[in-house]
Amino acid sequence: MTSLEEKRHTLAHLLAAAVAERYPHAKPTIGPAVENGFYYDFDFTGGDMPGEADLAELENSMREMLPSWSDMTGTEVSEADARARFEGNPFKLELINGIVQSGEKITLYTAGDFTDLCRGGHSEHPSKDIKADSFTLDRIAGAYWRGDEKNPMLTRIYGLAFDTKEDLAAYHEKIEDAKKRDHRKLGVELDLFTFSPLVGSGLPLYTPNGTIIREELAKFSEELQRAHGFQKVWIPHITKIDLYKTSGHWDKFGDELFLVKSQESSDEFALKPMNCPHHTQIYAAKPRSYRDLPVRYMETTTCYRDEKTGELSGLTRVRSLTQDDAHIFCRPDQIQGEFEAIMNMIKKMYGTLGMEFRARLSFSDSAKPEKYLGDPQLWKEAEATILEVAKKLELNYEVAPGEAAFYGPKIDIMVVDALGREWQCATEQLDFVQPQRFSLEYTDSDGTKKTPVMIHKALLGTIDRFMGVYIEHTAGAFPTWLAPIQVRVLPVSEKHTEYGEEVLAQLRTAGIRAEMDDGDSLGKRIRNAKGLKIPYVLVIGDAESEAKTVTVESRDEGKLDAVPVGDFVERVKKEIANRA
Amino acid sequence: MTSLEEKRHTLAHLLAAAVAERYPHAKPTIGPAVENGFYYDFDFTGGDMPGEADLAELENSMREMLPSWSDMTGTEVSEADARARFEGNPFKLELINGIVQSGEKITLYTAGDFTDLCRGGHSEHPSKDIKADSFTLDRIAGAYWRGDEKNPMLTRIYGLAFDTKEDLAAYHEKIEDAKKRDHRKLGVELDLFTFSPLVGSGLPLYTPNGTIIREELAKFSEELQRAHGFQKVWIPHITKIDLYKTSGHWDKFGDELFLVKSQESSDEFALKPMNCPHHTQIYAAKPRSYRDLPVRYMETTTCYRDEKTGELSGLTRVRSLTQDDAHIFCRPDQIQGEFEAIMNMIKKMYGTLGMEFRARLSFSDSAKPEKYLGDPQLWKEAEATILEVAKKLELNYEVAPGEAAFYGPKIDIMVVDALGREWQCATEQLDFVQPQRFSLEYTDSDGTKKTPVMIHKALLGTIDRFMGVYIEHTAGAFPTWLAPIQVRVLPVSEKHTEYGEEVLAQLRTAGIRAEMDDGDSLGKRIRNAKGLKIPYVLVIGDAESEAKTVTVESRDEGKLDAVPVGDFVERVKKEIANRA
Repeated sequence: MTSLEEKRHTLAHLLAAAVAERYPHAKPTIGPAVENGFYYDFDFTGGDMPGEADLAELENSMREMLPSWSDMTGTEVSEADARARFEGNPFKLELINGIVQSGEKITLYTAGDFTDLCRGGHSEHPSKDIKADSFTLDRIAGAYWRGDEKNPMLTRIYGLAFDTKEDLAAYHEKIEDAKKRDHRKLGVELDLFTFSPLVGSGLPLYTPNGTIIREELAKFSEELQRAHGFQKVWIPHITKIDLYKTSGHWDKFGDELFLVKSQESSDEFALKPMNCPHHTQIYAAKPRSYRDLPVRYMETTTCYRDEKTGELSGLTRVRSLTQDDAHIFCRPDQIQGEFEAIMNMIKKMYGTLGMEFRARLSFSDSAKPEKYLGDPQLWKEAEATILEVAKKLELNYEVAPGEAAFYGPKIDIMVVDALGREWQCATEQLDFVQPQRFSLEYTDSDGTKKTPVMIHKALLGTIDRFMGVYIEHTAGAFPTWLAPIQVRVLPVSEKHTEYGEEVLAQLRTAGIRAEMDDGDSLGKRIRNAKGLKIPYVLVIGDAESEAKTVTVESRDEGKLDAVPVGDFVERVKKEIANRA
Repeated sequence: MTSLEEKRHTLAHLLAAAVAERYPHAKPTIGPAVENGFYYDFDFTGGDMPGEADLAELENSMREMLPSWSDMTGTEVSEADARARFEGNPFKLELINGIVQSGEKITLYTAGDFTDLCRGGHSEHPSKDIKADSFTLDRIAGAYWRGDEKNPMLTRIYGLAFDTKEDLAAYHEKIEDAKKRDHRKLGVELDLFTFSPLVGSGLPLYTPNGTIIREELAKFSEELQRAHGFQKVWIPHITKIDLYKTSGHWDKFGDELFLVKSQESSDEFALKPMNCPHHTQIYAAKPRSYRDLPVRYMETTTCYRDEKTGELSGLTRVRSLTQDDAHIFCRPDQIQGEFEAIMNMIKKMYGTLGMEFRARLSFSDSAKPEKYLGDPQLWKEAEATILEVAKKLELNYEVAPGEAAFYGPKIDIMVVDALGREWQCATEQLDFVQPQRFSLEYTDSDGTKKTPVMIHKALLGTIDRFMGVYIEHTAGAFPTWLAPIQVRVLPVSEKHTEYGEEVLAQLRTAGIRAEMDDGDSLGKRIRNAKGLKIPYVLVIGDAESEAKTVTVESRDEGKLDAVPVGDFVERVKKEIANRA
């Protein structure tokens, strides 16, 4: 049975064959399968190169060639033969160098008249396996050789490929839907955030509307945590690198940090990429007794990560990451209670947000105990505890042995959005290592000094990223409690403005985010409000002004009966209070 | 009439005379009057130097010498004479060079047997003017010649001096009081913040208690602003330096910035030392009409300034400055309304906090119009407007011509603390320059593009600094709404714990920050609660448990009558709501 990945990989060869025919000067480089199809990178230096308009022609060539690709076979060749065949193509020669160095065999794969240097993993009978209407060429983009911006820029041609025409169509539909939901597009339309070339990529600036959503999300997260005894703390965004030398992060991630240079002192600083080392310093500031534990610190704070410019994307991959982060310092016998409490918060959070999730229990690999630091017995008990929590709370979970961090086992929460995509958001992780690195301790009931266990947790994870996901999940139609504008009041004409103001004042007094729009024609104002996906629109005309009622246009339920203003205020207040 | 400053300056000479007698090898350098007395810097190289223990002896010498200082007179001398007299003292010779270069006269002042190079400004009859018990030598410290760390280190002897013995005693008392109120000491005692050598100096970490105060202060500031239409926004803490190149800050303050180095991209970043340039980019993100103005952005956000390590002090001088910052973009005709609204917020803020303030109106110097950028007519009108606001709101104000920034006039608010010290906290500043630099615009009613005016404002200024000031102002006895722990419940013995829990639950349900302390002896627990300056302590014994009442020990009013729990809850709730 030929896998979809093998078909896609085969289609990359077929694309290269079509390009070789039409652009004989093109130097093929590499062409792998990807999650929705395949691509191939070419160097077109020294001749003309295809544009988007030429893709249809190339696609047709591929379809014409396909019936002749009845078999695809591999042959092992000597280094000399391989070099001779790809003489004049420095990219392939570089690949051959790599294969030789690694001690692997050099193999060539041939189908129809086309031969390529390749490790294998194709359809053996392409003309039989691959349906001519199951693929299409998608777009052209620039790409650096081996992804390194110091290397030459190549031309990448992307193709989409699925098992059937229907699957391809379904994918196209999903993409169209995703485009409509694209948070970068909705971010502008709903006026949620902006980027400035003067400030830089990956550094969003949030407008008043977007800031409301950020703050409401953070407030919800803080409320859930506060109810379980978490206390807010505050830490600066920079630190001397000494902190990371002690924590061990410097050795592991030193070259992924934004370094901060003081012009006044010789201290070396970095922007914090995580908060745990700072939080240990608050714990360490005074002596702790076993009775004081768990100590639970939470903070909505921004971390900075030096992501590659090419990898930045809207809010889902940023350089400034605001997290609803928290750290618990506890005794080993408190792990279960804390894990359960946090998991209940996660259930409440995503239940309220209307998103399903599954849990991945990342455990140690019992065959490689040397990979993990900390007491093996503690690991064993902790993993049993985590599993017990997952069962007790009836999570949709899977155990992933070998996926634990070296410092402790964890639960990663994969949230599923309206398009069926999975996003890693919430997490809770045990840490047996950092408390030791920072010599944290507490005095136990018997008077001895012990090392606490640390738990890292986040409910939303990176709020920016979650917002990006949630904008796409809801297509911008936020639940009332999150909507930047909850109610818009539209007086039919000037003579209804006075009563409109009255209604507005009542809404605002009740703490509802309401505003009035009295410009333009009523039709245009209604369209605007719908475009902004405002949960409630109140049209105020003669009948309403006389009866002191409001006629409610609900975004989700359509037109509702006219009700007294007070009743409507109560309805919205309740909805907000319940985060419904 | 001899001024206190002249007496102090004279005493610096007297100190130098006493030092010259006891340490003939000492080279005197400079010795000015300062705000609480005087100092003199000496180079003791080549012989022994005094320690703190020797100050009493020097002080006695000064007192013995004083009666012989009946007259202090100045003589002009030639450069050659001056050089001859101070041959062998490179510091004095360097001073002489400076005097010669500036074209001033060289004068020597003599009293008793002692002559010093000096510009003048002394008591003419020291033995008559200066009371022998009105001064004292205070301490010894190192100081670089001319304050430059590249120069040799000298020994500075500080003296305290006032008009009378009583004034000196009063000063000593004030210093003792200030020591007790020292926010660095109280910060530890009340568990408000901590510093970690791994994180670095000037970078406080706030514990749960301190974070409550920060957040309550920020919330109050935001509430005042929100009521006037300010909207929260969010900006990252870093930016490409291009932003500051455009704003003009790069040229002015480029070497005072923390620079941020990306290891992944070639972009140059800096930590933001202020927020205005970022906020302009949110304004600039969409077209604005004259009807949209004023646009008012507020944010509680952290700036970073690369302060010299030696200048850092507790919370009052930090490297991480969290500000309640805001920027208004408005039309010129809206300046008055905005200035008035902000000044009313400042009055409300400091009135609530129980602090007086005076306003300094920093205006342009009409003799030097070239110092100021922007339309002179706009400057003139704006200054008139600001003066009108100051009069209308009956501020305690003074006009400071020539103190305006080059970009616009401003009002600085000097807050007075319980020890009579002044601190610059709140500010509102007009800015005619930045909107132009960033090409900000709005479409006016006639369809033309106009440049908005910008107003910078802060109510608390740097919250860290304000907290330092306020801890000392209140000596840590915060008003109830700001107190990290508002109520502490102390059950007399174990059998009262159950009712104590009941009371605690009622307090917490009402949103009051309450906790129970049931360890240790009652006496010790009462002392602990007093030490933490908790506003209310409830002692729960037999009588209270039976009658379902609480006996209230108020920090500020002493013991109150027993009342039903509900009454006490209402009292505290009201106090918090009114920020009383």
